[in-house]
Amino acid sequence: MTPKDDTWKARCEAGFLAQGVMGTLGVRIVSLDPGRMVFEMPFAAGFTQQHGFLHAGTVTTVLDSACGFAALSLMPADREVLTVEFKSNFLAPARGEMFRFEGEVVKAGRTLSVTRGSAFADGVEISTMQATMMAVAMP
Amino acid sequence: MTPKDDTWKARCEAGFLAQGVMGTLGVRIVSLDPGRMVFEMPFAAGFTQQHGFLHAGTVTTVLDSACGFAALSLMPADREVLTVEFKSNFLAPARGEMFRFEGEVVKAGRTLSVTRGSAFADGVEISTMQATMMAVAMP
Amino acid sequence: MTPKDDTWKARCEAGFLAQGVMGTLGVRIVSLDPGRMVFEMPFAAGFTQQHGFLHAGTVTTVLDSACGFAALSLMPADREVLTVEFKSNFLAPARGEMFRFEGEVVKAGRTLSVTRGSAFADGVEISTMQATMMAVAMP
Amino acid sequence: MTPKDDTWKARCEAGFLAQGVMGTLGVRIVSLDPGRMVFEMPFAAGFTQQHGFLHAGTVTTVLDSACGFAALSLMPADREVLTVEFKSNFLAPARGEMFRFEGEVVKAGRTLSVTRGSAFADGVEISTMQATMMAVAMP
Repeated sequence: MTPKDDTWKARCEAGFLAQGVMGTLGVRIVSLDPGRMVFEMPFAAGFTQQHGFLHAGTVTTVLDSACGFAALSLMPADREVLTVEFKSNFLAPARGEMFRFEGEVVKAGRTLSVTRGSAFADGVEISTMQATMMAVAMP
Repeated sequence: MTPKDDTWKARCEAGFLAQGVMGTLGVRIVSLDPGRMVFEMPFAAGFTQQHGFLHAGTVTTVLDSACGFAALSLMPADREVLTVEFKSNFLAPARGEMFRFEGEVVKAGRTLSVTRGSAFADGVEISTMQATMMAVAMP
Repeated sequence: MTPKDDTWKARCEAGFLAQGVMGTLGVRIVSLDPGRMVFEMPFAAGFTQQHGFLHAGTVTTVLDSACGFAALSLMPADREVLTVEFKSNFLAPARGEMFRFEGEVVKAGRTLSVTRGSAFADGVEISTMQATMMAVAMP
Repeated sequence: MTPKDDTWKARCEAGFLAQGVMGTLGVRIVSLDPGRMVFEMPFAAGFTQQHGFLHAGTVTTVLDSACGFAALSLMPADREVLTVEFKSNFLAPARGEMFRFEGEVVKAGRTLSVTRGSAFADGVEISTMQATMMAVAMP
């Protein structure tokens, strides 16, 4: 997929750093490409559900950011990204040491982009997301 | 709605306390009723997106738990609850001091329950969720 | 909810009549109000799944239109409505003689509107929908 | 993916034929494989929205069946399939002569299966679905 200008990578990195929750969760960027982001985070005991696995909402938080920045990477430089909605299915318990999150653009539109995400626990797919992202003018 | 036994409240409270992420986020129970849970949390700077508002995933984490325990409250005592899937729409930025999360059961089935959640920032609705919860045998 | 001009009702009725599938399915308007539509259709054997009940997709077709026209009723006169996405849960088999479909606006935005729908078979709720609708300029 | 017995193909074909709406819409099977179904239908004027394109609900009806039979193909012979829920995004208008619908299993579970579907109009992707299917005992 083709970005609209040369600033896409810097804009995505800056946006990622500005999200307090990414630092709190210990998420790091594995790779940034136009229309596709890969993040990872190690297990963190503070973000679990009742069985000691990562909470579905924690998994969803990182998937949402991966999908959001994938969409942002294809938007013009004067746009920001907002999550319109997402839907996640949970395929297996989020049990593991290292979690991987992939977000990619299915369809990049002028206003709305459709994205898809997948999360993995030690290589096993645990969640799949379908999300709509919106390009909005910078405030 | 009618719970299946007298332990529903204790089971929901114990499950809530066992979720590490509820404590980390500073969530507290406002009210527990059969088929309906209300939680709240104050703004927390560590869980934000790039504009300094609560991240959509943070909002979804608490809504998922509110919907999950609402479903659990109507299940038999030997069952646990798992999130099958959820879908959230975001109606307004999660900007505010105090956030409220309501989860309630729309249809309680033997295996699957359909739930609905709403999140509010200082009284303004910011997100609406539709989620499927599953009753599974205790391990 | 307050419509933006006096033509909302005529625009919704004309849009409904222009949808070939509404006539084919035998759907009729029960009531039109700003931000809320109620439709109904009798059972039709040509639109069933393998047990002879209405197909989930048939139920969804009418719910989508009820939600779409509910959104359209609050848009300016020079706008059309498109479905961005929807999500439906199925609560019970679509078994019955008469089916009722309610669509209403949860949040009306300038570009996007969030809507909610419920379908009933002989008074029993069988499906609940959460959908995003978009206002687009007339071609 | 590996079916559980030799009857999977006959069961899927019989189920398809038993769905009245498939015949009414003029849908035909392109290919059946374990965990993956491909259907197609020509444009049909009776199933349109207000611009004369296929209604989003019509597209969803066929995608739901493709996903449902994909799930059924991996279930034991004494099970039937029910749609728990689905979520569809619409990527482009359903404008074209020939429509193709692909449904495949992402994760086959004992009770629940997660599936994904894509619809195409003359080769252009117009919709993507994420759906949960349930195995239920034959009545």
